[in-house]
Amino acid sequence: MPKSFWSEPLVYQGGSDTFLDPMEPIQIAEEAWGIDFEAEVAVIVDDVPMGVPEEEAGQHIQLLMIVNDVSIRNLIPGELAKGFGFYQSKPSSAFSPVAVTPDALGEAWSDGKLHLPLRVTLNDKLIGEPNAGVDMTFNFPRLIAHVAKSRALCSETIIGSGTVSNVDRSSGSCCLAEVRMLEIIADGKPKTEFMKFGDCVSIEMFDSKGDSIFGEIEQQVQPYRN
Amino acid sequence: MPKSFWSEPLVYQGGSDTFLDPMEPIQIAEEAWGIDFEAEVAVIVDDVPMGVPEEEAGQHIQLLMIVNDVSIRNLIPGELAKGFGFYQSKPSSAFSPVAVTPDALGEAWSDGKLHLPLRVTLNDKLIGEPNAGVDMTFNFPRLIAHVAKSRALCSETIIGSGTVSNVDRSSGSCCLAEVRMLEIIADGKPKTEFMKFGDCVSIEMFDSKGDSIFGEIEQQVQPYRN
Repeated sequence: MPKSFWSEPLVYQGGSDTFLDPMEPIQIAEEAWGIDFEAEVAVIVDDVPMGVPEEEAGQHIQLLMIVNDVSIRNLIPGELAKGFGFYQSKPSSAFSPVAVTPDALGEAWSDGKLHLPLRVTLNDKLIGEPNAGVDMTFNFPRLIAHVAKSRALCSETIIGSGTVSNVDRSSGSCCLAEVRMLEIIADGKPKTEFMKFGDCVSIEMFDSKGDSIFGEIEQQVQPYRN
Repeated sequence: MPKSFWSEPLVYQGGSDTFLDPMEPIQIAEEAWGIDFEAEVAVIVDDVPMGVPEEEAGQHIQLLMIVNDVSIRNLIPGELAKGFGFYQSKPSSAFSPVAVTPDALGEAWSDGKLHLPLRVTLNDKLIGEPNAGVDMTFNFPRLIAHVAKSRALCSETIIGSGTVSNVDRSSGSCCLAEVRMLEIIADGKPKTEFMKFGDCVSIEMFDSKGDSIFGEIEQQVQPYRN
């Protein structure tokens, strides 16, 4: 990992032509490709000028959502080895049914981060509920300034946080790749498998009163048949 | 370079929110970032189903264009070192004023490739006119099948060829990075500089009668002022 990892955001350009509905099945041709969810927070911005400074970037955040940024894990190593980043390994993402303004989040929205747990279950079993405001290396204004360095962002551009993850492992994980990596560190090999056809992932965030903020993303993995 | 380089296309997901008009200036904040053009051919497809086989992919090609796929060369090494591919180093692209159907190209369109020279000048000096049908490792149907492996492509999706380049160097180059690399191989160091503010690049393709097929892309590099 280059030194710049801690001083510069690591971003990629995702596809934006086809998104999945919050309850739409994740259709993948091969179970063996290694199907994983990634639970994230995302912001929607208005028109952002090229070169916007970090101090002015936050005011462009109009709405927040949660996301399932689906990954096909076993296609990633071959793609990254070629040096141009993800493509086949990042199929369509699903967003929450509801997006809310920063104001509606009250004190949970501060310092350009959303300070609430993001809860993920797989087949109704809790996988994790790490806090999206903890251990986020770069806040959203910093991410926006980074992606607007050499081009303007049009209104409705979506910027994701990356998979929510806490250094304190007691709250669990927001993707199976992290669960498996922790198993490898602990036991030398992973015991958790990636998602199988029929598996169902649920992603949701609750406010301090226990009410769902964005509604639920709930998706079953299904075989794709052309 | 991994072995897969010759058996699997190397693609990246470009930004599609903001494109440049064919005669719109290329506005970049810093000349020192290393501003380069890349002349390419691109196709526009209709709705392509996930997993389309290569044999069926060609029938989805509805239109062809030429492109200036602008690169910011000095931002590339830092981005690729992080492993997630291009982002800041690939600002908005410009497409030709005219797109044409495959039929309109006659015999020049065969085997999923466009067999005509793509002519590039910089400040009216010829940089190259390599043939877009020669040395294209993967034809467009193969590229489409690759990018549709794990997701459907919506109608109007654009797929670029990559910078046109011929093994026979006598026809010149379609980007300054290649010109510089050949100078390094020949003389140990590059003598051609990247584009400066005020420089003007022109990209055009002519049919066998000498008529312009797509019209001209003609862009001046200008300093971006926020």
